[in-house]
Amino acid sequence: MLAATVCAKELTIKLTFMRIIPNRGVVGSSPCSSKKIIIKPLAALIVLLFLQLCALAQLKEAAAENQATKYVLVIHGGAGTILKKNMTPAKEKAYTDALKQALQAGYAKIKAGNSSLDAVEAAIHVLEDNPLFNAGKGAVFTHDGRNEMDAAIMDGKNLAAGSVAGVTTIRNPISAARAVMEKSEHVMMAGPGAEKFAKQAGLTIVDPKYFYTEERWKGLQQALKEDSIKSKLDHSSNQSQQKLGTINTDYKFGTVGAVALDNNGNLAAGTSTGGMTNKKYGRIGDAPIIGAGTYANNNTVAISCTGWGEFYIRNVVAHDLSALMAYAGLSVEEAGKSVIKKVGDMGGDGGLIALDKNGNMAMPFNSEGMYRGTITKEGKIEIRIYKD
Amino acid sequence: MLAATVCAKELTIKLTFMRIIPNRGVVGSSPCSSKKIIIKPLAALIVLLFLQLCALAQLKEAAAENQATKYVLVIHGGAGTILKKNMTPAKEKAYTDALKQALQAGYAKIKAGNSSLDAVEAAIHVLEDNPLFNAGKGAVFTHDGRNEMDAAIMDGKNLAAGSVAGVTTIRNPISAARAVMEKSEHVMMAGPGAEKFAKQAGLTIVDPKYFYTEERWKGLQQALKEDSIKSKLDHSSNQSQQKLGTINTDYKFGTVGAVALDNNGNLAAGTSTGGMTNKKYGRIGDAPIIGAGTYANNNTVAISCTGWGEFYIRNVVAHDLSALMAYAGLSVEEAGKSVIKKVGDMGGDGGLIALDKNGNMAMPFNSEGMYRGTITKEGKIEIRIYKD
Repeated sequence: MLAATVCAKELTIKLTFMRIIPNRGVVGSSPCSSKKIIIKPLAALIVLLFLQLCALAQLKEAAAENQATKYVLVIHGGAGTILKKNMTPAKEKAYTDALKQALQAGYAKIKAGNSSLDAVEAAIHVLEDNPLFNAGKGAVFTHDGRNEMDAAIMDGKNLAAGSVAGVTTIRNPISAARAVMEKSEHVMMAGPGAEKFAKQAGLTIVDPKYFYTEERWKGLQQALKEDSIKSKLDHSSNQSQQKLGTINTDYKFGTVGAVALDNNGNLAAGTSTGGMTNKKYGRIGDAPIIGAGTYANNNTVAISCTGWGEFYIRNVVAHDLSALMAYAGLSVEEAGKSVIKKVGDMGGDGGLIALDKNGNMAMPFNSEGMYRGTITKEGKIEIRIYKD
Repeated sequence: MLAATVCAKELTIKLTFMRIIPNRGVVGSSPCSSKKIIIKPLAALIVLLFLQLCALAQLKEAAAENQATKYVLVIHGGAGTILKKNMTPAKEKAYTDALKQALQAGYAKIKAGNSSLDAVEAAIHVLEDNPLFNAGKGAVFTHDGRNEMDAAIMDGKNLAAGSVAGVTTIRNPISAARAVMEKSEHVMMAGPGAEKFAKQAGLTIVDPKYFYTEERWKGLQQALKEDSIKSKLDHSSNQSQQKLGTINTDYKFGTVGAVALDNNGNLAAGTSTGGMTNKKYGRIGDAPIIGAGTYANNNTVAISCTGWGEFYIRNVVAHDLSALMAYAGLSVEEAGKSVIKKVGDMGGDGGLIALDKNGNMAMPFNSEGMYRGTITKEGKIEIRIYKD
């Protein structure tokens, strides 16, 4: 960029001189010295043409670069222990296809001039309806064999926000979060109350059986088995040290999320999750907490997090990222790295996606992998799963 | 302070002159002019003694002032439409006595060398057990005639945090929040799951009837009546504009909270509330949301908020205050004013208490009043209710 600017500037200076004294040959001025130099017309023309070509090429490159960094939608399908060695080509394709489909659904909204909220909701619908991800249809089971889901959405334009926690009958929790934001004066609703509200707001209510998938059920059985072994071990070693609701770190990932920037410059963020396999005690993670797992502010950035929720709540990660940009002047990339480092330093893991008001994005994570995808203003899609 | 410094400086100058030319009388120099004046020994001695006394008195006052600004505990009993004209002397005394009792309970912990967490919990216990405040015993009723309480606590030393939402059988929700923090690996628990956990953690469980108070019950009946009138009016005017769960702004205040700084320099914050009278749909306010209504960080400040919770969640008020101190270099007073202004600009109201790592405090609010109290390191108590 800097090289292109300098080159373009040199060209302008030379062209200006040419116009002023066309018949006296061309007078050039080196930007590195104050000494004037006289160049003969033909040589000058060659030099000029060369410089012009150089400038054009570099400007084109810079423009292309600029376009490439203008993202309009970034999504994630959860961070965790995602290793290539454990993946089959078919499974990898299924994830990639699903992420692509979600990006396309969201992008269609942006392209049609709809809001970033519409894009976020559309992208998350695709992920919620796909059993591969721990949200909506693919939600994991709680200790009691239920599917309790959380979701949140935030509008960067006016800081409006909505969220639901512990819902069991709403097909698309992200839409329930949006209804709370748009059709109530509240921000957060939980449990049966949130479900009652969603029904009154006209959302699709399903039998809890809808959320049953064999894979997640097996996941719970495995977790219960490990819990029982762990409980026996804890019992024999040091019972007083045993904490209620101990987390098996392998079971806490899989949240989905999206951040978008629409044609009017409005940012939005959304997150949806089935929480942790085998979760107990009505535990609420970071996803439905505005400022922790989800945040959007047109002045700075839109963020959706995934990972070990407790660390994201304690670090107020999403708002901290925004505050680092607003008050400390960090870029989205620097701020993203900084907050993930804080989570890591405390012993937590996971990642996040962030899209700033200028279309710059960051997708930092400290886990083995994170299902993630981006789409540029021109519709260029990129999907990644593992560490770079 | 400035006056004391100037006076002390004058004294030093004069004493220096005395020592240099002791036998030639005393040469003094007025700070307001460069003209030298000669004073006779006896007169000089009198002037000097007077100045010395003046300096000592002012230095003592300044030192006392310095000590007075070292706060160790700040509490609030809720912000709202609290007007002197609506208060009886007996009611005012009851509130003042309760706040004093809470400050003394928390101060006793600090004085005994216990942690700021102990002080916060002890102070909030007093307020939760007093029916005057909308927390614990005095919790307001939901639309369905239940008492659903929320609470959160945070340890500034390690950013550990715990919170409960929508609990109906735990006598002291602040202790349940602390148990979540200390006896589980979770941060937030809601509903029956949180109650089950509290019971397993050995907390005092009561029959929901314990939370019945005649005044709060009457408050609900009044709210239901107004709701019904409002609903009819809305129906006749513009039904499509009617939002589900519309807030009557008079019914949303009364949260209690405490922030403390212990002898080891550790900050802690806690908040406990019965939420809004006539609340529906399992609404969760800002009190149990880490970063919104409650936050503590030894690097900056401890905060507890009270007011129209939705605005506090959307502005991530407590963490924003901390971030303004950490990243923008604002004082606790400046940061407090700034975040309350943001809430006000969006149409929200309420207040907060904040205590920084150096013992400076702020208690900004934009409502008519806020029950609030402070206690200094030396045990000096101050209670306020209305605007200054």
